[in-house]
Amino acid sequence: MTSPAAKGVIHGIGLGPGAQDLMSVRADRLVRGAQHVAFFRKAGRPGQARRIVEGMLRRDVIEFAMEYPVTTEIPVADPRYNDRLSGFYAECTDHLAALSATGEDVVVLCEGDPFFYGSFMHLHSRLTGIAPVAVVPGITGMSGAWTASGAPITWGEDVLTVLTATMPEDELVRRIGDTDALVVMKIGRHLPKLRRAVAAAGRDREAWLIEYAAMPDQRVTRLSDADAVAPYFSILLIHGQGRRP
Amino acid sequence: MTSPAAKGVIHGIGLGPGAQDLMSVRADRLVRGAQHVAFFRKAGRPGQARRIVEGMLRRDVIEFAMEYPVTTEIPVADPRYNDRLSGFYAECTDHLAALSATGEDVVVLCEGDPFFYGSFMHLHSRLTGIAPVAVVPGITGMSGAWTASGAPITWGEDVLTVLTATMPEDELVRRIGDTDALVVMKIGRHLPKLRRAVAAAGRDREAWLIEYAAMPDQRVTRLSDADAVAPYFSILLIHGQGRRP
Ligand SMILES: C[S@@+](CC[C@H](N)C(=O)[O-])C[C@H]1O[C@@H](n2cnc3c(N)ncnc32)[C@H](O)[C@@H]1O
Ligand SMILES: C[S@@+](CC[C@H](N)C(=O)[O-])C[C@H]1O[C@@H](n2cnc3c(N)ncnc32)[C@H](O)[C@@H]1O
Repeated sequence: MTSPAAKGVIHGIGLGPGAQDLMSVRADRLVRGAQHVAFFRKAGRPGQARRIVEGMLRRDVIEFAMEYPVTTEIPVADPRYNDRLSGFYAECTDHLAALSATGEDVVVLCEGDPFFYGSFMHLHSRLTGIAPVAVVPGITGMSGAWTASGAPITWGEDVLTVLTATMPEDELVRRIGDTDALVVMKIGRHLPKLRRAVAAAGRDREAWLIEYAAMPDQRVTRLSDADAVAPYFSILLIHGQGRRP
Repeated sequence: MTSPAAKGVIHGIGLGPGAQDLMSVRADRLVRGAQHVAFFRKAGRPGQARRIVEGMLRRDVIEFAMEYPVTTEIPVADPRYNDRLSGFYAECTDHLAALSATGEDVVVLCEGDPFFYGSFMHLHSRLTGIAPVAVVPGITGMSGAWTASGAPITWGEDVLTVLTATMPEDELVRRIGDTDALVVMKIGRHLPKLRRAVAAAGRDREAWLIEYAAMPDQRVTRLSDADAVAPYFSILLIHGQGRRP
């Protein structure tokens, strides 16, 4: 163990879209060597980040599961939603900061890239100035999705817009009509609204839905052939058609 | 050697933003095992993709450097530009397809992610139907850039727009003013135009320039403190400021 004077480092580690061998060599090394790993999950679920590293952890690893207190029970607009989440992130921060203070390094497992719509960001902003934090970028879920689709996302001068399906419908329509290439994240129960928006923008025949990219249940369908509900791990894509000599 | 009946696979391999240990475990394995590697470079330059894998290749590896016939000598709008490039990609395709036909696998080294504004895409589209092609996604240059900046790129419902600095100035202004988070690629000699566009959109104080992300010469500066010209490997970022409980 390091002397108590030296604080441990909290590593936010991008694990990539799902397949274990799509994590970086740096992430692989840190995950295999970690004495402490922490990860987010929904209560009662194994957690996708934890699933990716199955079989890689040290036998004497100490795991810290951070279980979201709210998911869909309280509406996002309700102030209690923010309060509950904020308190939760503060507790997680305290736990990690305490480990760091005793000189222990911690590896926080993150799906995709930690700084791209990730939960780790809420710990990162709270830990900054309190404990040493290091971030390892990862292959994003969207890179996994366009690779699964078998076609490039952007050519030449294509504009790429990345949206979340949680946006208001009219805003979705406007932005889907004003871009070359498109990625839509966080779809789930917003799929019917997203479908209407893509159609209203006149782009339904270009749209693809990618579920569980780079995971065992990976599925690529045209939006027109997709089911009525999409899983949490799904991404809508429209491929750019820019200049190609 | 495989029987002549079985064609070799052409692998387009994402190497990530620059640091060798930021390539995926899958990419690392394929690069180290490759008998044939191919990569793009400017004439007279070592090539960034080739540089990333320095020290990893087999001693008996056979290298195929694909040197761009034109870069800045002919304007992009000139039809000869397209003709020259198109002929060049066709020649590269022929060479790789011939190797595949003799049963040899080939690893094509790609910076970042192969399907995100990459040159490999021009081989991929030509090889499809002729030879078996497989793509390994990679950490993009932009993930390397926002990691270097030390701050998340997108929170909550932030819209992310990815542009190339080669666009007309008024179009840059409009789009920079109409997004939460921003990534601008392919800056180089377009930096003065991009600077004016960011200022006209009223966002100059939020903008960061990241040069050589995850490479030895990595540099992070506010746009206001940047030099007059940016290198080829540079990305402009504006971080989203979305909901954060
Ligand atoms: C909270 S965000 C996390 C994004 C992650 N940090 C990344 O870099 O991709 C969760 C959303 O990412 C998308 N996502 C991430 N990985 C995915 C995958 N392998 N397949 C499909 N969608 C994925 C889904 O849209 C999901 O709703
Ligand atoms: C032809 S595109 C290739 C993009 C690559 N396929 C990717 O996934 O990032 C070249 C542009 O990518 C950006 N880029 C790629 N890697 C970079 C890095 N490590 N640092 C800064 N810019 C980078 C620069 O804007 C450069 O002009």
